[in-house]
Amino acid sequence: MIDWKIKDNLYNPDNVAWHGNKYLTGNGYMGVRGTLEEYTKNQLVAVNLAGIYDKVGDGWREPVNAPNGFYGYLIVDDEIVRLPDVTECDGKSDGTESGNNTGNVATVKCSEHFIELDYRHGVFTRCTTFRLLRGNITVRSSRFVSMDNVHVGAIKTEIFADFHADVKYVFGIDADVWDINGPHFDIIKVSNDGMLTVDAVTHENNHNVSVAEEVRSDFPCELKDEEELNKALKSVSFITDVNKVYEIERFFAVYTSLDCDNPIEKAKEDTVRIAGAGFDKLLDEHRSAWEDIWKYSEVIIEGDDKSMEALNYSLYHLHSIAPRHADNLSIAARGLSGQTYKGAVFWDTEMFILDFFLMTEPEVAKKLINYRIDTLEGAKKKAAEYGYDGAFYAWESQEKGFDACSDYNVTDVFTKRPMRTYFKDKQIHISSAIAYAIGKYVEITGDDSLLKEGGAETIIECAKFYYSALVKKVNSDRYELRDVIGPDEYHERVDNNGYTNRMAKNTFRLAVRVLENDKFISHICKLEEPNEESADSEIRSRLLEMFKDAYEKIYIPEPDSEGIIPQFDGYGELEDVTVDEVRSRLLDPKEYWGGAYGVASHTKVIKQADVVTWLAMYPQDFDTKVIEDNWNYYEKRTEHGSSLSACMYALVACKCGMTEEAFPLFTKSATADLAPGGKEWAGLVYIGGTHPASAGGAYMVAIEGFAGVEFAEGKINVNPRLPKNWEKMTFHISHKGTMYRVDIEEGKATVTEVDDRRSLIA
Amino acid sequence: MIDWKIKDNLYNPDNVAWHGNKYLTGNGYMGVRGTLEEYTKNQLVAVNLAGIYDKVGDGWREPVNAPNGFYGYLIVDDEIVRLPDVTECDGKSDGTESGNNTGNVATVKCSEHFIELDYRHGVFTRCTTFRLLRGNITVRSSRFVSMDNVHVGAIKTEIFADFHADVKYVFGIDADVWDINGPHFDIIKVSNDGMLTVDAVTHENNHNVSVAEEVRSDFPCELKDEEELNKALKSVSFITDVNKVYEIERFFAVYTSLDCDNPIEKAKEDTVRIAGAGFDKLLDEHRSAWEDIWKYSEVIIEGDDKSMEALNYSLYHLHSIAPRHADNLSIAARGLSGQTYKGAVFWDTEMFILDFFLMTEPEVAKKLINYRIDTLEGAKKKAAEYGYDGAFYAWESQEKGFDACSDYNVTDVFTKRPMRTYFKDKQIHISSAIAYAIGKYVEITGDDSLLKEGGAETIIECAKFYYSALVKKVNSDRYELRDVIGPDEYHERVDNNGYTNRMAKNTFRLAVRVLENDKFISHICKLEEPNEESADSEIRSRLLEMFKDAYEKIYIPEPDSEGIIPQFDGYGELEDVTVDEVRSRLLDPKEYWGGAYGVASHTKVIKQADVVTWLAMYPQDFDTKVIEDNWNYYEKRTEHGSSLSACMYALVACKCGMTEEAFPLFTKSATADLAPGGKEWAGLVYIGGTHPASAGGAYMVAIEGFAGVEFAEGKINVNPRLPKNWEKMTFHISHKGTMYRVDIEEGKATVTEVDDRRSLIA
Repeated sequence: MIDWKIKDNLYNPDNVAWHGNKYLTGNGYMGVRGTLEEYTKNQLVAVNLAGIYDKVGDGWREPVNAPNGFYGYLIVDDEIVRLPDVTECDGKSDGTESGNNTGNVATVKCSEHFIELDYRHGVFTRCTTFRLLRGNITVRSSRFVSMDNVHVGAIKTEIFADFHADVKYVFGIDADVWDINGPHFDIIKVSNDGMLTVDAVTHENNHNVSVAEEVRSDFPCELKDEEELNKALKSVSFITDVNKVYEIERFFAVYTSLDCDNPIEKAKEDTVRIAGAGFDKLLDEHRSAWEDIWKYSEVIIEGDDKSMEALNYSLYHLHSIAPRHADNLSIAARGLSGQTYKGAVFWDTEMFILDFFLMTEPEVAKKLINYRIDTLEGAKKKAAEYGYDGAFYAWESQEKGFDACSDYNVTDVFTKRPMRTYFKDKQIHISSAIAYAIGKYVEITGDDSLLKEGGAETIIECAKFYYSALVKKVNSDRYELRDVIGPDEYHERVDNNGYTNRMAKNTFRLAVRVLENDKFISHICKLEEPNEESADSEIRSRLLEMFKDAYEKIYIPEPDSEGIIPQFDGYGELEDVTVDEVRSRLLDPKEYWGGAYGVASHTKVIKQADVVTWLAMYPQDFDTKVIEDNWNYYEKRTEHGSSLSACMYALVACKCGMTEEAFPLFTKSATADLAPGGKEWAGLVYIGGTHPASAGGAYMVAIEGFAGVEFAEGKINVNPRLPKNWEKMTFHISHKGTMYRVDIEEGKATVTEVDDRRSLIA
Repeated sequence: MIDWKIKDNLYNPDNVAWHGNKYLTGNGYMGVRGTLEEYTKNQLVAVNLAGIYDKVGDGWREPVNAPNGFYGYLIVDDEIVRLPDVTECDGKSDGTESGNNTGNVATVKCSEHFIELDYRHGVFTRCTTFRLLRGNITVRSSRFVSMDNVHVGAIKTEIFADFHADVKYVFGIDADVWDINGPHFDIIKVSNDGMLTVDAVTHENNHNVSVAEEVRSDFPCELKDEEELNKALKSVSFITDVNKVYEIERFFAVYTSLDCDNPIEKAKEDTVRIAGAGFDKLLDEHRSAWEDIWKYSEVIIEGDDKSMEALNYSLYHLHSIAPRHADNLSIAARGLSGQTYKGAVFWDTEMFILDFFLMTEPEVAKKLINYRIDTLEGAKKKAAEYGYDGAFYAWESQEKGFDACSDYNVTDVFTKRPMRTYFKDKQIHISSAIAYAIGKYVEITGDDSLLKEGGAETIIECAKFYYSALVKKVNSDRYELRDVIGPDEYHERVDNNGYTNRMAKNTFRLAVRVLENDKFISHICKLEEPNEESADSEIRSRLLEMFKDAYEKIYIPEPDSEGIIPQFDGYGELEDVTVDEVRSRLLDPKEYWGGAYGVASHTKVIKQADVVTWLAMYPQDFDTKVIEDNWNYYEKRTEHGSSLSACMYALVACKCGMTEEAFPLFTKSATADLAPGGKEWAGLVYIGGTHPASAGGAYMVAIEGFAGVEFAEGKINVNPRLPKNWEKMTFHISHKGTMYRVDIEEGKATVTEVDDRRSLIA
């Protein structure tokens, strides 16, 4: 069985950015990159906050990174002793990460080093032994941001040396934070008068971001104030006994003016309280909260520890960024791993992440959907701006549904000019994902309160949006969606993308259902002006007629004579070359493959599952032969340049019984953040970070693919087709308010109702 | 008054390419670039043939250049004496044009040099004095390709020296021709056995291109055979008396297998005959043919010789390329000046060139339109290929309406990759130009035979095309044309380009007229399958209904609150910057301004008149205030990066009474080939050559703008608004079969019927 821990030995500066993501800890309120305490913005440290955004000048609007309460480093015998500054490290160290430093570092070496993440409990540990002229000194720290109280973090640092070291441990809050499009703080008030505090004010909306910190140690030492620009620092100084372990505990709390009226006071209060409780007690509460979370969400796979580890590690990431604490947040495409993708919510949440929460923690799924219902006004505003009716959801959604997506998302590597992209204006499938998610939520949970609380209205507004986007040739009765971008972003401005049309059709179907059901009509506050009852009834009839008509007439591409469903009009005439051939045409490795002139744009090579995403969502649309043919056709032509791709191919492969083909794609999805090699550049824009959609996709493959869980007519059907080494699989599934345990062994599935104390939605 | 001659003194290798266009001579069958006899393909010599095309490998399909029968150079005292090879020239000579040479040139200088074009008669003269060690020798030659017999050319070379020069004059046919996408001759059979002949065979269609040549001299000399690869050469040798003039006359004929069955024999026959007649007789016949042409086409402007020269020089170019000899040819966008623009026919012919011929030589106008009627099948085929009904004319039309336009028309300067352009597939306004031209022909000539001979059918097929391209939002009754390119090519893939929609509307109008008129119906061979009479009548009713409906419902943009007509949907939201600002953003002077990411693409800066072209065609659509406001708005934002631009602005300015604003734009149009500075590059693609559309546009400005000629209710109205120095203006106008002379003086116009012997269309 697995030990729920990942570990990296050796210090390698090349891995600093990647490990920041891989070793992320988080609690939905904040995400702390897996960087070391002594790291600064140069090593991409971030305490990334959920749902608070800022924009400076012409830069992209992005989430705010809080001042880092975990900051701290050692000075031993008057030499700075910290990792990016060491001159040499056993194992690789090429010194490329050497930052600015003020002390003498010439004689510091690092002899042993590891970092470790307990991904069952979200505890990050580092241990480094520095070899100095007089002897060796080791710093070992464990830290977490609490799943029990999401505003707080705690770290215990242990220091011991094999000589009488003159130690000074400098620590506190680093407000000189990493930003991509910053700086976001116009004012940074730093204090080390008594408690350490930073009170910073954001540029755009004058939000306060406040951090307070306390230290505890149980050995004699000297506590001093330290001064560094934009850091609230103190130090403790002591001389070590040989091999005696010195423990320093630190506690901090983060509040913003979005959380409460007086965030700095609240942060101080919390800090006093948690410092009083002590590290071990806080850690117990934190671990206990995590154990509760895992109770019904862990997936046990016997016979394949690697898969079990990768899958649960993926789920750990989803848990770490789930907005359990809030009512108006969803999950950003890069989670809480930093500012890439602008901390914005994409279709990833509805199409790739939702299923996991739907099946294990439907309360969280409801929150995710509620974020979309809450931002309906923003979506209606966007639709109006583009000349549409209804709700056109943000492609990159921030608070209130503000679309953070720029018209220029990629920088041309040759000219350094921003390239006009059409993600924001033409990726209209986004609204269908929201309608789809609402439909799926109701279907799986059986909870139709969501419909009454805005879900029905949201579906209807999405349908109105698509209806207003429909065009037809004057001489034809076929309804079309033209000039769009489908999931495959390498082909811009295409007509009749199959996925988009199919999803729009589903939106019309859902809208018809809602309109036909009297139960929801009264909850649709206002179908349209004027709001008189009789008019409403007329409008209802008219909408019903419209959406039924659209459902009937919208064009859904069919397989051609070879059985291949064209991804969009004219796809079949594009140059048919291999992914490798297209790659070989790159003149620059960072060059964008898509856009008007990208190497893939006029070929059949696609970025990610597109037709296959359709097939994953609607396998009932075609017989298995067609699905298999299209899988084979498109898989060869897919770069998998998006972390949303492999899981869809894996899922469809499972549905065709191609478990062997699915397995490596499952592994790719499940290890997106565990293995090296994630795509970090689109043109000259850095897009690194964690991959929650890939994590969610891995779950879908495991549960809906390999285990074969389906819901039909109110029942759970399980048709397992496990990978060959998976001897046994155990997991829980929530369905219509009841929790079930599923055990699969030797091709047989047992579904057992669980007596659950938790109040599931019913 | 003007002398109908242009002249350039001094030899400047930088001007060789430009002067090749400026000094072009032609007769509709062939165009001979204004290069010197001793020039080769390195100096862009071309005897460019009309209507014969070839394609090699992946290169663009382009017209064939015939072997050059004018080739010849001097050897004096064993030294090669010819211009690109001289070491020095009084006046500028930086030697950049020095080609390959085999003789000793170290001691040759050029002391005097000029070239001259008699543009009343299409006679090109050069005169160069070379300063040698022993004295000066002068070569003076005059040449023409006959307007009387379009297959033949003649050149008289006079040689005289101020010392006893040992002269060898090498001459003949140079089959090593300049090609952009060649070589086009797979076989070149060269002979100097008796008569000089070259018989070459093209690659794609195995067309023969055959040239024969004879020489005549009336002084004692030695005639010898000469050998050079792919040249049919002889030489005459003699010792000069001091200051005695030695005349050598040469005669050649060109035929291709498109002209007759045995082109080489026909070329020989012609050559024997014309050599027998002699240079002076041929020249007389040629001049006489030109005088006939000018009889009703010259435009006399008293008080402004520069304008008179520029305008008539422009008309000279139009005459030189008019396909008087043929029934299945039109005029290529770069005339007969070379292979740029693939020798293809663009909308230039119908919208910019046609008026000149309509008003002066309607037989030629009819030929131009007949080319489109003849190529209707090609246009129907293209429409079908793109999923449309009716006739979608070639954007770059070659024989049979083959569309030579590539999907990749521009080469990116940064990556050297071809850029996907949409001229071929989305510049759908082309078909409306053909319908417009037919309508205008009938209106001005009163000759409806054209309608019976395919014109009516062509209009209906064009209307069917637009009808099939119309889309509407499902929730609206407005018909739209989406995803098109208008005249301004810098903005690709736009919706509802005003010009396009307005021209399509006109096409529907013309189609309704044709269908309502029983006279033409019987000439529309087949409206559609099945071809039974009763069905035809039904179809006629159905088409009528369709086109009337389309005419009513097609969306025509209206002036916004500021009175500005948006060029296309969303134009108003583009960045509003100056042309200079956009130019300053270029990273490379050859960079393409348009395409998806060009410097102009996302700004309001446009390449050429677009809305203003609409206003030029339909001034009745708006009141003068709107027209003036839009002129002022768009003129500022226009790069005039196309030679089609200035004339439309000038024309509209005249219609608003802004003669002063119009005048410099008129001059720009009229001097497009006379003045330096024509645009020679689009990305990395060479687009140099003559500008017939600009010439035709200059005529439109002079006659329809300044002179104010209009046709209304079968009458000629003349409302002059002459530029201030134009004291008197005289020209002829053909209208409904009668030729009229128009005299304008002191703001008054006199229109006098002319007793014309020529059979005008009636």
